[in-house]
Formats: sequence, structure tokens, C-alpha cells
Amino acid sequence: MILGVAYYPEHWPRERWETDARLMQEAGISRVRMAEFAWHRLEPREGQFDFGWLEEAINLFGRYGIQTILGTPTPTYPAWLHEMYPDIHQVKSNGQVKEWGQRQDACKNHPGYRAYARRIVEKMTAALGQNPHVVAWQTDNEFGCHGTARCHCPNCGRAFRSWLRRRFNNDIAALNAAWGTVFWSHEYDDFDQIWPPMDTADRTANDGQNPGLVLDFYRFSSDVQVEMNREQVEIIRRHSPGRPITHNLMGLFHQIDYFKLATDLDIVSWDNYPFLANNTNRPPAPLAHDLMRGLKQKPVWVMEQASGPGGWGSYAATPPPGQMRLWAYQAVARGADMISFFRWRSCRWGREQYWHGILYHHGIPQRRYEEVKQLGAEFRALSTELDGSEVAAEVGILYDYDSLWALETQPNTGDGFDYRAMANGWDAALARLGVVADAVSIDADLTRYKVLIAPSVHVCPPATAERLAAFVRAGGTLILGPRSGVKESEGAIVDALLPGPLREVAGCYVEEYDAFSQIPGLEMRVRCPANHLYRAYGLADVLVPEGDAEVSHRYEGRYYAGKPAVVRHAYGKGCCFYVGTVMEPAGLIGFLRYGVLPGAGVAVLSDLPECVEVSYRSRGGTRYAFYLNHSDAAVKVALARPGFDLLAAAAVGDSVEIPPFGVRIVREGGL
Amino acid sequence: MILGVAYYPEHWPRERWETDARLMQEAGISRVRMAEFAWHRLEPREGQFDFGWLEEAINLFGRYGIQTILGTPTPTYPAWLHEMYPDIHQVKSNGQVKEWGQRQDACKNHPGYRAYARRIVEKMTAALGQNPHVVAWQTDNEFGCHGTARCHCPNCGRAFRSWLRRRFNNDIAALNAAWGTVFWSHEYDDFDQIWPPMDTADRTANDGQNPGLVLDFYRFSSDVQVEMNREQVEIIRRHSPGRPITHNLMGLFHQIDYFKLATDLDIVSWDNYPFLANNTNRPPAPLAHDLMRGLKQKPVWVMEQASGPGGWGSYAATPPPGQMRLWAYQAVARGADMISFFRWRSCRWGREQYWHGILYHHGIPQRRYEEVKQLGAEFRALSTELDGSEVAAEVGILYDYDSLWALETQPNTGDGFDYRAMANGWDAALARLGVVADAVSIDADLTRYKVLIAPSVHVCPPATAERLAAFVRAGGTLILGPRSGVKESEGAIVDALLPGPLREVAGCYVEEYDAFSQIPGLEMRVRCPANHLYRAYGLADVLVPEGDAEVSHRYEGRYYAGKPAVVRHAYGKGCCFYVGTVMEPAGLIGFLRYGVLPGAGVAVLSDLPECVEVSYRSRGGTRYAFYLNHSDAAVKVALARPGFDLLAAAAVGDSVEIPPFGVRIVREGGL
Amino acid sequence: MILGVAYYPEHWPRERWETDARLMQEAGISRVRMAEFAWHRLEPREGQFDFGWLEEAINLFGRYGIQTILGTPTPTYPAWLHEMYPDIHQVKSNGQVKEWGQRQDACKNHPGYRAYARRIVEKMTAALGQNPHVVAWQTDNEFGCHGTARCHCPNCGRAFRSWLRRRFNNDIAALNAAWGTVFWSHEYDDFDQIWPPMDTADRTANDGQNPGLVLDFYRFSSDVQVEMNREQVEIIRRHSPGRPITHNLMGLFHQIDYFKLATDLDIVSWDNYPFLANNTNRPPAPLAHDLMRGLKQKPVWVMEQASGPGGWGSYAATPPPGQMRLWAYQAVARGADMISFFRWRSCRWGREQYWHGILYHHGIPQRRYEEVKQLGAEFRALSTELDGSEVAAEVGILYDYDSLWALETQPNTGDGFDYRAMANGWDAALARLGVVADAVSIDADLTRYKVLIAPSVHVCPPATAERLAAFVRAGGTLILGPRSGVKESEGAIVDALLPGPLREVAGCYVEEYDAFSQIPGLEMRVRCPANHLYRAYGLADVLVPEGDAEVSHRYEGRYYAGKPAVVRHAYGKGCCFYVGTVMEPAGLIGFLRYGVLPGAGVAVLSDLPECVEVSYRSRGGTRYAFYLNHSDAAVKVALARPGFDLLAAAAVGDSVEIPPFGVRIVREGGL
Repeated sequence: MILGVAYYPEHWPRERWETDARLMQEAGISRVRMAEFAWHRLEPREGQFDFGWLEEAINLFGRYGIQTILGTPTPTYPAWLHEMYPDIHQVKSNGQVKEWGQRQDACKNHPGYRAYARRIVEKMTAALGQNPHVVAWQTDNEFGCHGTARCHCPNCGRAFRSWLRRRFNNDIAALNAAWGTVFWSHEYDDFDQIWPPMDTADRTANDGQNPGLVLDFYRFSSDVQVEMNREQVEIIRRHSPGRPITHNLMGLFHQIDYFKLATDLDIVSWDNYPFLANNTNRPPAPLAHDLMRGLKQKPVWVMEQASGPGGWGSYAATPPPGQMRLWAYQAVARGADMISFFRWRSCRWGREQYWHGILYHHGIPQRRYEEVKQLGAEFRALSTELDGSEVAAEVGILYDYDSLWALETQPNTGDGFDYRAMANGWDAALARLGVVADAVSIDADLTRYKVLIAPSVHVCPPATAERLAAFVRAGGTLILGPRSGVKESEGAIVDALLPGPLREVAGCYVEEYDAFSQIPGLEMRVRCPANHLYRAYGLADVLVPEGDAEVSHRYEGRYYAGKPAVVRHAYGKGCCFYVGTVMEPAGLIGFLRYGVLPGAGVAVLSDLPECVEVSYRSRGGTRYAFYLNHSDAAVKVALARPGFDLLAAAAVGDSVEIPPFGVRIVREGGL
Repeated sequence: MILGVAYYPEHWPRERWETDARLMQEAGISRVRMAEFAWHRLEPREGQFDFGWLEEAINLFGRYGIQTILGTPTPTYPAWLHEMYPDIHQVKSNGQVKEWGQRQDACKNHPGYRAYARRIVEKMTAALGQNPHVVAWQTDNEFGCHGTARCHCPNCGRAFRSWLRRRFNNDIAALNAAWGTVFWSHEYDDFDQIWPPMDTADRTANDGQNPGLVLDFYRFSSDVQVEMNREQVEIIRRHSPGRPITHNLMGLFHQIDYFKLATDLDIVSWDNYPFLANNTNRPPAPLAHDLMRGLKQKPVWVMEQASGPGGWGSYAATPPPGQMRLWAYQAVARGADMISFFRWRSCRWGREQYWHGILYHHGIPQRRYEEVKQLGAEFRALSTELDGSEVAAEVGILYDYDSLWALETQPNTGDGFDYRAMANGWDAALARLGVVADAVSIDADLTRYKVLIAPSVHVCPPATAERLAAFVRAGGTLILGPRSGVKESEGAIVDALLPGPLREVAGCYVEEYDAFSQIPGLEMRVRCPANHLYRAYGLADVLVPEGDAEVSHRYEGRYYAGKPAVVRHAYGKGCCFYVGTVMEPAGLIGFLRYGVLPGAGVAVLSDLPECVEVSYRSRGGTRYAFYLNHSDAAVKVALARPGFDLLAAAAVGDSVEIPPFGVRIVREGGL
Repeated sequence: MILGVAYYPEHWPRERWETDARLMQEAGISRVRMAEFAWHRLEPREGQFDFGWLEEAINLFGRYGIQTILGTPTPTYPAWLHEMYPDIHQVKSNGQVKEWGQRQDACKNHPGYRAYARRIVEKMTAALGQNPHVVAWQTDNEFGCHGTARCHCPNCGRAFRSWLRRRFNNDIAALNAAWGTVFWSHEYDDFDQIWPPMDTADRTANDGQNPGLVLDFYRFSSDVQVEMNREQVEIIRRHSPGRPITHNLMGLFHQIDYFKLATDLDIVSWDNYPFLANNTNRPPAPLAHDLMRGLKQKPVWVMEQASGPGGWGSYAATPPPGQMRLWAYQAVARGADMISFFRWRSCRWGREQYWHGILYHHGIPQRRYEEVKQLGAEFRALSTELDGSEVAAEVGILYDYDSLWALETQPNTGDGFDYRAMANGWDAALARLGVVADAVSIDADLTRYKVLIAPSVHVCPPATAERLAAFVRAGGTLILGPRSGVKESEGAIVDALLPGPLREVAGCYVEEYDAFSQIPGLEMRVRCPANHLYRAYGLADVLVPEGDAEVSHRYEGRYYAGKPAVVRHAYGKGCCFYVGTVMEPAGLIGFLRYGVLPGAGVAVLSDLPECVEVSYRSRGGTRYAFYLNHSDAAVKVALARPGFDLLAAAAVGDSVEIPPFGVRIVREGGL
């Protein structure tokens, strides 16, 4: 268990550095991330490099036992570079040229930007890559943040066309056929007629364009980030061998296919800011944790964790005592081996003046510092137990960026049909039952899971359908959400009864689908086998079971009242559920608890208080259960198994009380 | 009664065409509309034309007894044309250039676009105009859809200035006087200083500009569409004589003066998508029907009728069983002689992937096909009765685009003062009383009507005032809505007590007007002669009766409580009501039922259930009453007169039950 | 007491002028403002001037005893000027070029505009400056209206860079240090790399940029207006000596530092449109009055006062009988010596067609004319008493544009933390206690006040802190609002415990601050010494008293419940209250009434009805109390002191009844 923090030596007087190093050491901090926004200080004039100040800082912190994770400084670029290339800026989908002065504001397809970015990374890694205190690298910072992953400038137009030529083997007829450009006479005679989708008409870029064009532009834009990352990874590997390379991802950020990006990383790290949940007395949604861990099906680092209230013009509420620590343990419980706070001390100027550090602007240690210090001491003590442990999920959530993008472009229904919300709904329902899931891609090792939940296999090429069928045939339990099997890989709708290639495994077909609205007095609900009624949202696939498939839930409302909403189909050694609509949380929880998990052999906790989150890490045969109280009141909770409370250093039996925002880590079984 | 459908042979394999033709034939479909988006397939390269595939399709369908309505393919233009003319695109009021890839996205004032559009229409009509299966033409498709009727590009600037020179006889002083440009020193020295109103200031284009400039720009923009239509009509007439020419209008779309456009058409057709009302158990508003019919005071075609849920990124609820048929009968009842569904089969790709056809994407006939088939059989049976019948309205609604535009620019009051909403309010109130109205222009044959309702004669040139006065003098009953007689034809406010030129016929003047807000606890209402209180909205004209005019309703609320809100004035052989505010529906219904219609000799139905719509077609002395149940429950309704139920083929007496979404057509009187 | 009106001779036939002059004379109007939008009529062609018609009008009105206030015609410019300079237009923060045809739409940094503006002012003042009927001048009209004070065009870029060079003595390192551009590598190598902040990224111009850059751009933009005003003042002084020069300010308009602008004016005038409050039965907020008077700590003119409903596309409710007069007396009571209505007669065309004058468009005197006439008679009678009287406030509100701008850029908290709203909250609370405050700058004569309330001294340079401390040391009572002492003058956050330079006078420091949200069931409140609970909004400074400072209010809610929210500190001969949050109105009223004002020796009225406003003018030892009933019902009110009712010409004792929208002016004391 490692404790870290982001530090910006360039922001503070040199004479303060040592004070900071000492305070960190006393708090148990052993990692600093540095330099990811320091391009101008590292190359103050074009071609004049200065790594001395940074090396001095690295060595100073090294003397205090604090090792450095270095960031490449390419997310922000110097004024002199912007002056050299007037066309370096990104262009928005509405045609506006973005101004200099943000982050991620250079176009990644601009040859000049890319050349200078490569050079600064080359120079930096050559200068510092062998420093013994440099123990890891972070490429750039939060690729795509503030909606910058998609640029519409002429350079991107050119790159997009090249990308399409490769994808379609330079065959414009193939593109026309796949996108169906014959509709509205929009057939291209040549790739040169194509450009990024804009939103200068009355509709948005998403809504006003050919869905095939939009889907491929989203893929291309994601690939641009992946390629930029890979370029830096290769340079770093060359100059700084043996140091793990990561990039700080942004959880549920949706404009980059993180599975692809993670392929080139040694370890996934990410930035965790659960601000919005900090007043609710309920656990922040765990999906981001479960996706980050699922990217490589491996432990992760939290590269940035909220160290106070964050925001730009306005900021979130201040985490009350214990909550920062609680969030850290939530991350650990869900697979993080390092927690690095962002940032050490609040910056006195600039855009993130109010993105608060552990210390306020004045630099005097106060409450939040003490809380971090407690965590440092605990981490040291816990390491012998937890180092090497991992999360071993029995349930997978199939997370698919193609489907997400297709539904982003065409959400089908006015309300309640959002890919991330659906995935989150399933994950949160599992969490209420004490079950942890990995969010994984179709290419993951699915054999780990007893149950695989696919919120919507909306874009479903044949290989995806076949992998899902194989999972079920081998004994897995598959849940398919609504609007599955609808689209071919370029966005065309399949020429078959839905769910198209999934019809055989699902054991049913979709007779009609209906994007209903919730009209007061005309509510749509589904009736479960136990005769409870649950509200449904957005869209209903009206199902017809085939063969020996059985009906589980039925619709209540609209003209298809009584028709099947959920169908269960035994297939091979496993079974598949087709869930035709979006159910309210209680409906999902009931369905999982009584309809799915027992049959699949997944144990559940019943009657967890709403404020309590439970998850597990294991090492060898030992399981560590984390009980997290996300409320501001103490709560009593029944334990999954008795064992030894690591933090209290005491045996615990059937139940424990957890203080407000408190944590219990129980090594289960013998003491 | 004709049943049709939109069909796109270019979207489907040639080997499927015959299956589709057969299925259509079996369903009783005898018309297909084709080719209105096929420019690129008809002219794949500049100057290379290919009409063979289309002719083949026309002939194939012809063999199945299905005749073709051909659309000119100018609403979407090929990539090669957009490549030839970088300035062909429309420019939005905020200065953004629209991208290629939508519909109606070429500027109609671009000389290159117009030349190529003329040429493809020439070539197409020359090639196919004499084909015996081509029975009608549609010009272009939905002029102005997606807000494209108003373009702000330099070509439009030039055309606008020419239009103004003609309007003002090249006299800039006349324009300055009419628009009152002396206000804020905005006098023009020359026509060349004028350009289309933009919304680049902090206000919108509507709100931030001289109202005279805006009103004339709206008129000009409408005239551009009218002129483009006329150009195509002339070409078609030349090459394809004897075939009626239509354009598919968009009901209450407001950026084109449809009265002007309709002048050049042989028959009005329109696109009917009552999606938004399909969950309410109430009739969709009839105003669009009544306006389309009123354009030429003649029967119409429905060129597109919803054949399933429609939408782009998201889509409306699926019409429940019976509702598509019900909507078709609503259109027939209100004057349609053809119902053509849009579209045959849902497109597998492109922007309208989710604008559903009769068949889903898979092409297998299901419920909606069966519903259409039922309609086909019924239409065949009904034709002997209904062919040649027409709607004979006794009430007219004066619908005036100038007033609509003036109030769009300056709505006077924050809430509740929208021209279309006011017209709809009157029409819906009439419908609740079983009374059908034509929405007509001031130039229509007004002698047909006993009652004429003018929601607001806001722009009121002397000729309009005189025609209205003449209508009353001759015995008609006229209802004038609030803010009538306010503006001269270029938007200047009259230099007289309001309602200015209508004061004599109205028998009252406006002492004050007040754009009140509904403050909780400070509601504005009007008290009717029977002492009921009805809520009022938005604006109050405080009236002073003159001569022998009588007060009908009085205000209740604000400082003019007790002052006249409605004044009745006997004038010539008729009478005029001035209604000074916008009353809630119950107020309008009560006013019409007790205050207006009995005196004018218009019969009403009392106590119609809210879900039931009644209207009539007549032929010779025979009247056919349509009883439409727009709810999902059966309802019993008293008949206007006993008669013979054509669909049930049975005599009916005082009342009938109508099934959910059901229809009764009663030939009244002797069996 | 002077009654005036805005009149536009150029809008009406010459033969009407005399009628208008006569009607004005009969109504007691003795001033007309003319010509501020007449550039094109005064210079119809470039270099051709025509002042004859205006002189004729001035003389005609002069013959009726009506003197003229002349406006320079620079807010709107002629078409010929816009044609000469295609780059004359302003550019919005999103890069859009504004069109011609509004007001204030020329860029004030455009050399051509400025040259022609100077010339027309030179010519106009030379021609008319000595006319005996010209008694005062207004520069331009409403600088900055419709958000035009900030322009982003290249000319402004250049001017901004020059302004910055002067501010930072041409030292780019000083700018980099002050703005902290090292953050995100945004250091400038040269002033030429700087340009106005745009909002072309995903955030707004405010939120997406370095706060130092934004704050200085706001200051620069304000200075541009100040400089333009000064330029005209100097020309007028030269040609028309002896006539007071004013500019019509816009109350709480926030893009110009009105304290700076007022420095160059002889007298402050402003435009008073309390439309939004006219239906509420409560007094319109007095802050605009109190700020306008506080600008120079002197009486003011109301240059425009609502003469009916106002608005562009839509308009406000019509003032009921008595309300226009009431508003006039509110202005008089709070320091106005002239009330000039806008405008005489509603314009028949143009953008302000619905900005109603005293007369409707038809020009016939009606109710509103009669109301003005009554006022004219009363003013004549009151002059002997009120002329020379002034408002003598005992309380000051520190109003600081730097702090306002810093909080506009970074409001800190999502809801409830708006500078103007906070200032208004204090002023309104005082008004409910019958206490009048001047809103003044830190450079004002503070010795006049017993109590000084600073809503938030957010930007607090050392000199400000020192002036505030001196005020307390000398015996004053100071109230500091939340987030005081946070920022240095360029927007950097101080390197000290907050409130930084105010910590000594405040006698406390801020341990933490928390931008809480109001979560249902988790409300944040403060408990006052009398144990009442008051809701708090937006942000909480958690205080730690130091030395002998005492805790007054404590927080109730969140994790710092029970900690100090308000601290009282005796300092020198006075005392200081630090108020750490925004309290609801009742909390402010209670705090002022029981906690602050008695100790400071400021008398309060208790239990004023909510609809009644009381304020005072004094002359010598005589005090005139104004009792204003802002409701539509009569109300009885206890008098501060008995005296003589000037309007009723009768003695009054302990209490009086005030009719709906009525006014009582009581000369207190002996009859």
C-alpha cells in the first residue's frame, strides 16, 4: 500500500521544498508525481532545455525517502509553440477555433505539436530516465479532459480520411455500403469528400449526421489518443527502462476506448474525485473503480484522489472528517495499490486555484493533513497483510465503447436510456448485495466469471455474439440488456428479427419495441415472478420466447401489458436472461438476488444498510473484507464472516459497529 | 380513397422489389412515392444521368397496379456539387456556415445550386414525364424543414436587397419611413447597406433588430421558397402534362406562407406526424388538417403519415394497435382523399434509421402491416360512398402569416401569447363542440362561413380591415382576438387608438393594454355573462365600448378589474366580438357555445366525451359523420343524427359504442 | 424638484412639436433630454452637419419654459460610418463579429470610430453649447448596455496589451508572477502573446481562463468606457462651459466601475426601471438608488424613469395607477433631485416600439399623462421644502467592483454567493428597519458612517485593509462578509491564514471553508445569540476567534456544527463583526437589529409592514420622512415622529394610513 501526492516544485519557492518533503515524510507519503504541466519551465525557449531544477527536486525528495513518478509535460504547451503555429489549436464541432490557455488544447494531429511533444519527451527521458529516484512514468495527463478528445480541424480531417482509407481498404464503395450513404443521396465519390461531423446545422453533431460517420469518427478520435500515448510509451521505454509506465485515466470518461489505451500501459492509474456523492450518506457509485480495475483485470493506482473540495469557478463541498480516508479505502477495497492525493498544497493562482490540496494556500498543516497522516500510518501497518492481494470478482459487466458511442449518438429514447447509467445501475445493484464486479471488454478473460451482465450489446458484430454464446455454452450465466444485437459494426441495423445474432442464445425475439414516455397516470412497470411491480424506463423490447425459454417478468402498462419483459433461456451448460427494459434499482436488486445469483452460485449479503459498502480483496486463501460506512452516523452491520479487524487489531464476530465515515477491514476466518 | 406509401427502391436489393410490390398490392396500396432523395443515383457524376433503374421500378410497381408519384430530387444534393461550389451552403443567423450532409442545406439563392437543380428536374421530367404509371409529381420535399427557410449567406443578402428594391420601388427613403429607421440613427443611405438580420448581438435575430427589417426578411425568405417551387412546377408542366403537381407541406410549419406556395400547386399535400399526442387519450389538435385544407379550400392528400414511431436520435412511442388507422381516418374526416404512409420499410442506415416504416428493418410483415392492410380493404369499400365528398365548414379561422411573424418577432408578453397556440385554441374549442373550421387567408372565399375567428389581426393593412368589415356588414359573425389592428403592413404601430382600422367594426377602443404575469395569488381571470370565472393569459386589452356595443365579459384581477374584456357589436347585418385576452379552453368553449354559435346559426354537439372527435364530409345532400375515439378505452357517444354505419354495415340509432382507438362512419339519414 | 422627459423631435412631424411642448408645460415638465441617438440626422453624410432642426426644437421648447439636456449622439452610429470601416464592430467572447444595428455596437478602441465620435461631439457642442436653453449635457447613453462593455476584437487586443504594459511597467516577469502563469505552463515570453480571454473552449470566458487575466481584462474594459467618457467631458467643457455634465448610468450594471466613471461627471444620473417588482406588493430593492447616490456621496438625477411598461420583444406589466408616481417618490426619497421620464410618447417603430412612453403611440393624453401631471403639480409645491435637502445616511455599504468581478469569475459556490445579491441582502435588511445606507467605495469619506458593511472584501490589497482597520480604530462598526481578505490585487490568493490582511481587525481566522450544498434534510443553518435558527447559503467560513473576540452566531449542520459563524471583535474605539456565511433575510435583519445597530447608535424602526418603505431627506435641522406604500391595498403605519404631511397639508400624529401605492411626506417636528 503506497501513499503518494502530486507536487509542483515550480509553484513554490525553492526554500520551501524541504519543508514540504519533511511534512510528507512525516505523513507517510513515499511518492510524488511531478512535472506533467512544466513544459515551459523545462523548455523556456524553443530548443533551450532546463532539467536542472527538476532533478534537484527529485533528489531532494529522494533524500526524504520519497520517490518520483514523472509526468511528460505535453498536456499544456508553451506560448512560444502556439506562436509558431497559428493552426495548432483544436477546432470545436461548431467550427470555433479554441484559444490557447487551457489543457489538451493542441490538436494531436498537428505535425508541429507532435514533433515538439516527441522532442521534449525524448529530452526529458534522456535527462532523467536513469535517475534512481524516478520509479515510474505517467504519459501526459488526462488525455481528452474537458471534451478535447474530438477535434474538427483540417489536420484532423486529413487524419480521419487516412484512417478511413485504412479501415475500408481504400474502397469508397465499401464505405458507402457500410454507412448506407445512399440514404439522402449522401454517397461519396471519393474519400476526399469526407470530413469530421460538425454541428453547424440545427441538430448537434451527434444527431444531425449519418450514424456510421459519427461512430467511425468517435473511434478515430479515440485511436488518436491511443496512438499519442503509444508514441510516448515507446520513447520512455527506450530511455528509462524498468520503470512502469501509466497514464492517469478519468474513470467513466467516455470519449476514449480505455481498453485500447490500457493495452500500451504497464499499469492502469486513474483520477478519483467522488465529490458529488459526499453529502448523500450513500456510497459513491463503484463503477469507475470496477472499470479501471477491469481494463487489464489487474490492480491499479489511484494517481489523483480528492484532497479537499475541487472545482474551478465554484467548488464542491469540503469532505467532512474521515471521508477522504474512507474514499481512499474504497479505492483500496476495489483494487488500488497506491493512493496519491491531488495535490499537496492549493495553488495560489491559475485556473485551479480552488482545486484544493491537502494544505490550503497558506501551506500550514491542518485537519486534512492529519487525516492523510493517519492513512499513512495505517497503510504502513496494512501493507504486510494487503500487499499482493487482489479483487477476485465472480461477476463481470460487459462494458463496450462502441455500444456506448452508438447510444450516445442515438439514445433511442428520451429518458433513462444511457449506457453508463445502465452499467452503473447493474453495478450498484450488485454492490447493494455485497457483490463486486469487474467491468470488462468482450476480449477479456471471461472464464473468471460466473455471471456476465451486458447492459446493452447494442453494436454486436458476429465475433461478439459468438464469444457471448460460448460463455453461456460453457456454463456461464449471461444477462442481456435491452436493444441488444441491433447494430452491425458500422452502425447499420441488422437485417433480421432482433436481437439478431443473439437470438439463438437469448431464446427469444423482439416482436416490437417501444420508446414509451412516462405519462402521469400511465406508468410503465414490470411484474416480477414474485408479483412485485417495478417501474421501467425509456424503452421496452416486447419479447416472444422461443423453444423452451421461459418468461420471468411481464410488462404492466401500454398495449403490450402481459407480454414478456424478461425471458430466461437454458443454453448449453449455462443460461441467458434477456431483459427487455430498464428497471428501477429495486427491480434490478430483486432480479439479481432471487432470479440470477443463487442459480449461478454467487453468494450475496442480505439487508446491507444503504450507507454501507462491502467488498473484498484476497491473497492465497485469505480474504479481506472491507466494510465502509459512507454516512455521517455510526451504523451496525452484520459481517459476512467473523475474523480479525486489522485496523482495530481485534477479533470481530457476527457484527460490528462502524463509526461515521468509518472503515473496518476484516481478515476473515482464523485469527 | 387512395392508400399509398413512400418507397425507396435505391435502398433495397433489386430482387426484393417484387416482394415489396406484392405485399403492397395485398395490402390495398395503389400509390408509391419515389425518388425525391435520389439525386446522386440519378446523376452519379456531373452531367451523367441514369433514370433506368427508376423507370424499371416504376414499371415493376405498375405491373402490380401501383402507380407512382415522383418527387424531384432537389432537397439533397450530391457530394460532387458541394465540391464544385464551396459557397453553396446555407449560413445561419449566427454566421455559422452549415455543413453538407443534411437536407435543404443548399442555399436556394445560390446560382449554381439553382442551375443544377433546374437541370436535374428538366432531365428527369423529360425522361419519365410521359410514363403511363407516373400519375403525379411532388416538387422537392418539405421546403424549409429543420429551420432552413431562412438563410443569411451573401447570395441571400444580394437577393434580399433586390427584393427590397422591388418592394419599395427603389426608394430608400420610403423604406426608411416604413421601417422607422430614424430610431437609433439606423437610416440607410442606400439599399446596399442592408443585409439579413443576424443574431450575433446579445439578443436573438428576432429580438435584436428593427421589427420592420425582420418582418420583411421573413417575407422575403418565404418568397424564395415559393419561387423555387414555381420554377419546378413550370418545368414539370412542360414535360409531364396532365399530372397533378403537389408539394408535401408540413402542417403548422411557420417559415413559409403556405397560402402563397399553394397557389402554384394543383393539389395540397402534407406530412402528418401526430406523435406527440399518442399517449394522451385525447385527439391530436386538428388545426394542421384544417389549415392544409383551408389553403385552397379544397380536399388534400396526406403524402406522409406516421407508419410507426418516428425520430432521429430518439423516437416517439410506438402507436398502439388501431391508432395508425385512427389517424388515417382523422385525416380523411378532415378532408384527405389519399393517405400515404411514410415509409414502407425502416431504413437500415442513415439519419432516419429510426423513422420507422410499416415494416421494421427486417422487412417481415407484422402488426403494423396488418393494420395498413385492414385500412386498404376499408378504403376500397368506402370509396363508392366517400369519393367526391368534401368538408363543408361553416366556420373559418383567419390564419395570417404576417401576424404570426410579427408576433414571433415581438410576442408582446412572456407567456401564452403565441399565434399558432391561439389559433389552435379556437380550433380545438370548436372541435370540442363538434364544429369544423377551415383555416384560411384573408383572400379566401369568406362567404362560405357564418362565423370567422381571427386569433389576432395583428398586422392589419387597410384592405384587410375592409374585407373584415364587409364580412360583418353582409351578416357574418366576426371574432377579433387581442392585439388586433395594431400594425401597419411594414410593422409600424398605427397612429390611432387601437384597434385602429378595426375600431369601427369592433365598436370599441383599447384604453390600455397590459402584459400581465400570472403571480401566485394574483391571478387574472375574466367573468363571463353567466358569472363563471375563466383564467386569462399573457395580455389584456382593456376595452371601452362605443355606441351601442355591449360588454360581454369583464376582467377580474389587476387594477382594471370590472372593466370590459369582451365587447359585442352589432354591425351591418352581422356582429363583431372583440376578445381582449387569451382565455383558457373552458372559457373559449363556453363563449362559443353560448355567446357566439347559436346566434350565428351554427349547430353544436353538447357533451362530447373528451376523447371523441367528430367531423363531417358531405357529397350532394348526404352527410357522413366521423366519430373517432382517441382513447385506449371503449366509449359510448350520442350521435348527431341516426344513420348507417359504413364500416359495421349496420344501422345506428341515437348512440353507439366506439372501441379503443376506434372509428364509426355514419351516413346520416335514411338507410 | 425637477420633472423632465426624454423627447425625440426627429421621430415626429414638426407640426406636432408644439402640441407636445404645450402638453408638457401643462404637466409641469421643465426639462427635455434630446438628441442622444440622432447622429445620422445631425451628420446625414460624412462631414455634412445639420444642427438646425435640433436648435429649432430646443428653442421651441424653450419658449414653453422647457430647458434642454443634450445628449451626445455617439451610442449609435450612422450606416455610412459602418460602411467606411468593416472592422468597426465589436467581437464577442466567442469570436463572433457583432452586426451593425444595435446600440453601443462600435468598438470603443477602433480609431476611426473614436475620431468620428470626437468630431461630432466637437461640432455639436460648438453649434449648440452656448444656447441659453441648453442647461446640461449627457455624454453618450448607457455605456456598456446590452453587455457591450467588453469587446474582444483585434483593436481591443492591442489596447489591452498597452494597458497591461503600463500596469506592469513593461515587465512581463512581473505579470507572470502576479497572475501565476507558471500554473499549466502558461507563462508569457512577451506581452504580445496576450489577448482578451475568449470562451471558445468548453468553459465560459470567465471560468476557463487564468483568473488574473480575466480580472485585469475586466478592469481594462471598464477603463475603456471611463476614458471614452472623459474624452467627451473635456470637449463639452471647452464648448459649453457652466453646464453640468452627466452620464445616464444603469444602477447595478456591473461591467463598469461606476466610481471611476463618476469622477469625471459633475453629477450622477441614472435610469430607473423597477419593472420586475411591480406585481409583488413589496418595495423594489433600494440598492441601485443607494449606489448611485453613493458614487459621489451626493444627490443625483434620475435621467430615465419608467413611464409605462417597457421591453423589446415582450414587455413588463403596466404600472397600475399611482405606481409611476410612487417610484418617482422612492427616487426622491433616496436622493434624486430630478425625475425625468423615458419617454414622452411610445415610438411607432424600431427596436423599442414597446418601450412605452407616457403617451401611447397615438399621442393622446390618458391615465399615465394625468399621473405625471399630478406629480408635476406636487413637485412645484414641494420644491420650497425639499430643494437643497439631502439624504444623510449613517450606514455605508462598501461596494467594490474588483471583488464583484473576482466573484463573477469564480463564484466559489454553486448557489447564493453573488456579490450584488449579498450587497442587496444587507441593504434590503436595513430598509426593513427604516435605515438608509450609502453604497460607497473604499475611497469614499467613511467618517460619515457609524456602521460600514462590506458584503465581501474579496480582493483586499493592503491599503484597503488599512483603511478598514482605521475606520474601526476611530470608533466605527465594521461588518465583514464571508470570503474577505482572500485575494491580492491581481487575483492571487494570499499566503496566510484568512482573512489575511483583515485578520487583526476581525479578531479571528478561518480554519476551514466549505461550499456546502443545501441537501433536503441536511440543511445548513446558523444559531443566533437569541437561539433562533436562520438558513445559510452557499459558503461557510469556519471561524476561530482570537484574543478577546467573542462568538455571536454558530453553525448548525454539517461537520462543523457548533463552530463559530459570526465573531465580534472590539478593536480600537470600534468593533468588527466577521460574518462567515450568507444568512437568509430574517437572519440579517435580526443580526442588525439586535446585534449591531443599537451598539452603533443607529436608530431603527420596528415592525414596519413589509409593503412600506421609509427613508429620509434632511436640510439643516429639518428631516423629511417619506412613507411609501408599495402595495395595492391601504396600510396603516406608525410614524417615526409626528409632524406635517406636506402632500396632504395636514398635521399627522403617531400613525397614518397610506392609500394603495400612496406616499406620505412628513416634515418632522414642529408644524
